[in-house]
Amino acid sequence: MEFVRNAWYVAAWSSEIDDDLRRFTILDEHIVMYRKTDGTIAALEDRCPHRLLPLSLGTRKGDDIQCGYHGMTFDCDGKCVRIPGQSNLPSSAYVVSYPVHERHGIVWIWTGDREKADPDDIFDMPEFTDPDWLAHHGDALHLKANYMNVAENLVDPAHVSFVHPTTLGNAASENVPVHVSTEGETIVAWRWIRDAEPIGFFRKFGGFTDNVDRWHYYYLHTPSIAVIDFGSAPTTDNLAEDERNKGNRIFALHFLTPVTRDHTIDRWMHIRNTAIDDEAASESMDAMFRIAFQEDKDVLEAIQQEEDRPAKRRPIRIAIDKGPMVYRKRISELIEKERTQDLASSPTPAYVYHD
Amino acid sequence: MEFVRNAWYVAAWSSEIDDDLRRFTILDEHIVMYRKTDGTIAALEDRCPHRLLPLSLGTRKGDDIQCGYHGMTFDCDGKCVRIPGQSNLPSSAYVVSYPVHERHGIVWIWTGDREKADPDDIFDMPEFTDPDWLAHHGDALHLKANYMNVAENLVDPAHVSFVHPTTLGNAASENVPVHVSTEGETIVAWRWIRDAEPIGFFRKFGGFTDNVDRWHYYYLHTPSIAVIDFGSAPTTDNLAEDERNKGNRIFALHFLTPVTRDHTIDRWMHIRNTAIDDEAASESMDAMFRIAFQEDKDVLEAIQQEEDRPAKRRPIRIAIDKGPMVYRKRISELIEKERTQDLASSPTPAYVYHD
Amino acid sequence: MEFVRNAWYVAAWSSEIDDDLRRFTILDEHIVMYRKTDGTIAALEDRCPHRLLPLSLGTRKGDDIQCGYHGMTFDCDGKCVRIPGQSNLPSSAYVVSYPVHERHGIVWIWTGDREKADPDDIFDMPEFTDPDWLAHHGDALHLKANYMNVAENLVDPAHVSFVHPTTLGNAASENVPVHVSTEGETIVAWRWIRDAEPIGFFRKFGGFTDNVDRWHYYYLHTPSIAVIDFGSAPTTDNLAEDERNKGNRIFALHFLTPVTRDHTIDRWMHIRNTAIDDEAASESMDAMFRIAFQEDKDVLEAIQQEEDRPAKRRPIRIAIDKGPMVYRKRISELIEKERTQDLASSPTPAYVYHD
Repeated sequence: MEFVRNAWYVAAWSSEIDDDLRRFTILDEHIVMYRKTDGTIAALEDRCPHRLLPLSLGTRKGDDIQCGYHGMTFDCDGKCVRIPGQSNLPSSAYVVSYPVHERHGIVWIWTGDREKADPDDIFDMPEFTDPDWLAHHGDALHLKANYMNVAENLVDPAHVSFVHPTTLGNAASENVPVHVSTEGETIVAWRWIRDAEPIGFFRKFGGFTDNVDRWHYYYLHTPSIAVIDFGSAPTTDNLAEDERNKGNRIFALHFLTPVTRDHTIDRWMHIRNTAIDDEAASESMDAMFRIAFQEDKDVLEAIQQEEDRPAKRRPIRIAIDKGPMVYRKRISELIEKERTQDLASSPTPAYVYHD
Repeated sequence: MEFVRNAWYVAAWSSEIDDDLRRFTILDEHIVMYRKTDGTIAALEDRCPHRLLPLSLGTRKGDDIQCGYHGMTFDCDGKCVRIPGQSNLPSSAYVVSYPVHERHGIVWIWTGDREKADPDDIFDMPEFTDPDWLAHHGDALHLKANYMNVAENLVDPAHVSFVHPTTLGNAASENVPVHVSTEGETIVAWRWIRDAEPIGFFRKFGGFTDNVDRWHYYYLHTPSIAVIDFGSAPTTDNLAEDERNKGNRIFALHFLTPVTRDHTIDRWMHIRNTAIDDEAASESMDAMFRIAFQEDKDVLEAIQQEEDRPAKRRPIRIAIDKGPMVYRKRISELIEKERTQDLASSPTPAYVYHD
Repeated sequence: MEFVRNAWYVAAWSSEIDDDLRRFTILDEHIVMYRKTDGTIAALEDRCPHRLLPLSLGTRKGDDIQCGYHGMTFDCDGKCVRIPGQSNLPSSAYVVSYPVHERHGIVWIWTGDREKADPDDIFDMPEFTDPDWLAHHGDALHLKANYMNVAENLVDPAHVSFVHPTTLGNAASENVPVHVSTEGETIVAWRWIRDAEPIGFFRKFGGFTDNVDRWHYYYLHTPSIAVIDFGSAPTTDNLAEDERNKGNRIFALHFLTPVTRDHTIDRWMHIRNTAIDDEAASESMDAMFRIAFQEDKDVLEAIQQEEDRPAKRRPIRIAIDKGPMVYRKRISELIEKERTQDLASSPTPAYVYHD
């Protein structure tokens, strides 16, 4: 199992990290994270280079960590600053430190080639700080599934009708075609369902009862971030495709962190332009999202178990798979590119969301 | 691990299958079974050929199954009848369907070469429907053991004295020789213990207290069905070998279903010529069988764990092993025969039991 | 994973073995042990050579064991004395028997070349029976860790300051150098911490409050026995190195039994020259040892998990590692020696402890 390493991944919500030493597993690496005395975050390889004890089982000494076995001490850059019983500190005595960046309550980490880590490349969108919008953090959902299967699900509008019939989809959309295009490292799959019954979500939060026009835009930013722009407006408004802000509009954000080959964390949140001062609405939406994402989890974990069995024939691909297929191809290319060290000279384009 | 595939295996008791979609694992294949509106049973490969979601997690649409991920729909022959979002149905869009046959409350399945599946080959015996006999279904006993070890136990009269001293055996038989012969695909191991104390089972159900003549005939129908004909009669009756119907006679039937390499289900039942109108006797016999079969389970699961460890030397074979050795040799031949596609032209002989 | 086999290992405390058939796993071998009618202990391969059922699931017949499947019976030397259903007893019908020796409440076993098993080579020390000393048996601590990692910890005085700060170590010793030497198959690592605060242990059992001289001598007898000689005396006594008996002195003994590659039992006990008539002191010391050894267990099990992951770089070695490195090198040599059958003619030197 390989991962795309030259990318910023979400390591945690800001609220998950405090003064304590905590282990996180990211891209199959054990990493200890903690908040330094200045409030910024340190992220170190969570294993002492001497006898391999996790540093997260050690003790903080100011901003340094002292290993719990023989007291070797590392500063927050991973440099060894003390070896009890000897005065020389060999150059091999270090742990890897990882670039970390915190923004909008989200902690980002970079496990690849350090020189390529540029915080300006971190995903952002203006609605995070726009006063007409509300950003609300959700959960960290653990799935026993490979991250590509999870990502695939997030560029796949077609499953909504079948997996989420009571919340995010309904039968009206079953046969509506899906459009797919790419914009740089972003894959977009979308469709409009016009003049149809409102889905459960917007019955509740838009107060819709008559027919609506409904849209789903799935933006999958390779390798691990999905933004689902969905919303509804009265059919009588006859909304144009670029007038979505006039309707009830929600961005559901999913930040995927590959933990291991078959374990992924989906940290999800949303940004909305409706009921932005209503905290009860946030909780109520979370409750609906939890129902829907548990449905995805059940599907994806069952699929992972099947994929781990010997196969007798290749899976088939159907028309709605265009987004997932583009995604998998791009992931393969990126991994191959890193593998062959042909890591180009052009900087990775920033994942800045724009409408 | 290979299995003999060109054979009818018991998939379930009839009572285990209803309108719901249920997964069964048989010969390491995942199979979804359900009762159609006409009451007959459908058995399909339990994995959608698209993204591998088990169909058993989907939804019934009449006699069809709609996959729970993207709504691909299969009829009860495995043919795809709908792919949402597209009109053409490619020939690769199908799931395997399995021949199934139901008789005497037992569901049989065939996972091998479909053309060879002939319901006339399914095991039967006239006592199932003979009014002088009572057929009583027992349990589905799960054993964490390879099916050949379980089968071996069922053509092995010698273990009864040691494993089942309070129910099916006693010390009187410890040294009585076992006869073994073959009749087509059936291996028979038997012995008579004459003029000895009755075993626990027949003290209880024959009311015997004085010495009896006791017989055990083990019929093992390759690959997976055992019929144990055992009974007792007063020694004073001096019963001939072919007069067993004159004594208290019980057929203990064992239908083995290999689940995986190290997991087997033994569905057991009995047919008897004594106390045939006495339901309490059935329950009481089941209780005794449960004690005995749990003893077998403990032995067979411990053996499986040992077999899964590296061996330093080959197991030895002793005189009483003739039945098991014939069985293992025959299984090897059948698997080899299927492997080499030399699947003969002569039909498999029917496993019809006759005395 | 290989083990040094030509050595006596502790199989059990004497109190762990009685008339019942009990399975022990030692050097990845399953062994059934029981006390014969004469009180001595039999140790046999715990698997019938016929169908591999563990003999520990069988039945005692006097000093023999009858297998629970078909009644094959073995005497306490492993010889088959009965096969029901046949009169000849083939020479292949046997189980391995292991040399066993019991002394000071400890059961020793030898799984290697039987001809080399000499009870005179078994570890002993005169204080076991000296009336000025008290020998007190502790627990059998299970660690999910390879035995070499456990042994390494027992020739490593440096970890005490960091792993056991409340019981066996304190900060005073953090930077005191460790001396290492070898005496035959024994590795010795030691240091004196002079004129320092007493550690928790001797505050409690020596009543010390003023500064003391403290010593730790770690004797590691390859492959699996550690004796830790530690103690304290008032600094004002100015104790010489060979006058340790004049202070409060404790021998902590650790008998390591490799169970499997990643599972070790540490049976620990102590012998002391202080409070020898005070049973409450024994219990109180055990309580302290339990705290300390649980701390070691936590460290060693975490390390085992890290060692079982793929490594990106080799662990580094530091000054305090001399003892562990000598130990690992010696283990490799012994395993290689056994592997190449160049099992020398000179007898293994006895592990007799002397001061």
